[in-house]
Amino acid sequence: MESSPFELKTYLQSKQLQVNNRLLLSLPPAVSSRIADAMRYSVLAGGKRLRPVLCLAAAEAVGGCSDIAIDTSVAIELIHTYSLIHDDLPAMDDDALRRGKPTCHVAYDEATAILTGDALLTLAFQMLASQECAADVPADRRLQIIHAVATAAGYEGMIGGQMADIDSESSRIGLSRLEQLHLMKTGALIKAAVTTGGILGGGTSEQIRHLHKYAQNIGLAFQIIDDILNVEGDPALLGKAVGTDEEKKKSTYPALLGLAESRKLAADRVKEALKALEYFDKKADPLRAIAKYVIDRKS
Amino acid sequence: MESSPFELKTYLQSKQLQVNNRLLLSLPPAVSSRIADAMRYSVLAGGKRLRPVLCLAAAEAVGGCSDIAIDTSVAIELIHTYSLIHDDLPAMDDDALRRGKPTCHVAYDEATAILTGDALLTLAFQMLASQECAADVPADRRLQIIHAVATAAGYEGMIGGQMADIDSESSRIGLSRLEQLHLMKTGALIKAAVTTGGILGGGTSEQIRHLHKYAQNIGLAFQIIDDILNVEGDPALLGKAVGTDEEKKKSTYPALLGLAESRKLAADRVKEALKALEYFDKKADPLRAIAKYVIDRKS
Repeated sequence: MESSPFELKTYLQSKQLQVNNRLLLSLPPAVSSRIADAMRYSVLAGGKRLRPVLCLAAAEAVGGCSDIAIDTSVAIELIHTYSLIHDDLPAMDDDALRRGKPTCHVAYDEATAILTGDALLTLAFQMLASQECAADVPADRRLQIIHAVATAAGYEGMIGGQMADIDSESSRIGLSRLEQLHLMKTGALIKAAVTTGGILGGGTSEQIRHLHKYAQNIGLAFQIIDDILNVEGDPALLGKAVGTDEEKKKSTYPALLGLAESRKLAADRVKEALKALEYFDKKADPLRAIAKYVIDRKS
Repeated sequence: MESSPFELKTYLQSKQLQVNNRLLLSLPPAVSSRIADAMRYSVLAGGKRLRPVLCLAAAEAVGGCSDIAIDTSVAIELIHTYSLIHDDLPAMDDDALRRGKPTCHVAYDEATAILTGDALLTLAFQMLASQECAADVPADRRLQIIHAVATAAGYEGMIGGQMADIDSESSRIGLSRLEQLHLMKTGALIKAAVTTGGILGGGTSEQIRHLHKYAQNIGLAFQIIDDILNVEGDPALLGKAVGTDEEKKKSTYPALLGLAESRKLAADRVKEALKALEYFDKKADPLRAIAKYVIDRKS
């Protein structure tokens, strides 16, 4: 059996291009209004597009075509971008730089940034419910997808995690509480990206179960590396400030475990993620490569 | 033909009770977290529940049962409440009082208020996509409802209107621009409440067309009266401060036309709304009574 090594870089570039093209189409025209302008500014500022790429790769891993998941993947990126805009606000993390550019409230103003986040969150659901989104998938399945994405993004998921994160500032929390917090704050939406991709790709419930385990583990690995990069990352590569967690006395993996132990924990999580993929054939190679990329990344 | 006069007060009380009971069930338990607590605080602070009642009344007007629209009506009220929380923020209207109680950012803090708004908006779509919501309605029709609500709430509707409203502060805009702004800011969600109610109730496209015209007109009448109450209303009855529009030099109907002319304009709008209802039988009496209530209200 012939097998060429999987080229993550080419794969990422091709998927990122597809995602960026679709994102562009999903946004209002630049000239229409201040809110449209700010929506475009934040969404088109770049970014790894990790969540949409995971969604597309999951659809492929179960043997489906990634095209069916493109709108859903883009809606999830809109939700991710809105959460960054709101998290960066002065009342929250008060960050001035994101993806190498001034954050939305710095480039515009606070009121515009709040409304722009609101608009992107709302647009995500408008997209998910539009006729074009996953048109070949039965409508009741599509309702399930919307429900899963909303649940992951809501008070039981991402928003609940962000609230708990703010609550935990200036107070030391334990490792299990930290893990629980990150499973909500970062993990829930990553999990939604992977599992909805699998569902749209026509995955069996057994396949979805394994994808779920994969996503849970890379979500945590991703967050641990995020914490590590906030200590020793290069701000120029990251496109945002470093050292901010320590300033705010945040409970992070490096703060609780030290850098070496944190790195080991992230590597263990990636191993677990790869184990969950043993169930799949080489169509899951992109997911495998992304898992390794998550801990090797510099940005 | 015997006909008893329609009792709006009793009708409103009964529908408000139904809406409030369902709202209570839609919210997370009070004890679960800070975000849950703040969500409950803002949603359960009272309010006229005008949008959900309109949604239920529209379902009845077309001959349907209002029960089928209850979850959709409640989701729309969650969206309305989120918009109030964000509009009240210091970076926006900076209001300290809402529904007679401290606004969310005063009772909690700004970060919590931003996240609480986000959580209610997300919960609305989680509800709309849940299995229980309008379970007897075909899934593709339910997707259309979600799409209509998201479009009304988004940058082309409510959020776009709020952005334009902020943009217009300290600068005089003309009457047609003011009307356009309010059709987006207040009108879009009211229209969505009425038309989705009609659709869920099984209305014909001709009926929906008339409901649309009704909603457009009472939406504007509602906003004109809101502007008038900000000039001469009783803060104790309103549960919020008055005179704030003039302080901010906002372009409003009274500022552009004077009070008497504004009142006449609102009355004309209600007449138009009632004309749109001539197409319906007495099952539309609640909608008729609500149209009159909109201009007689003191709060």
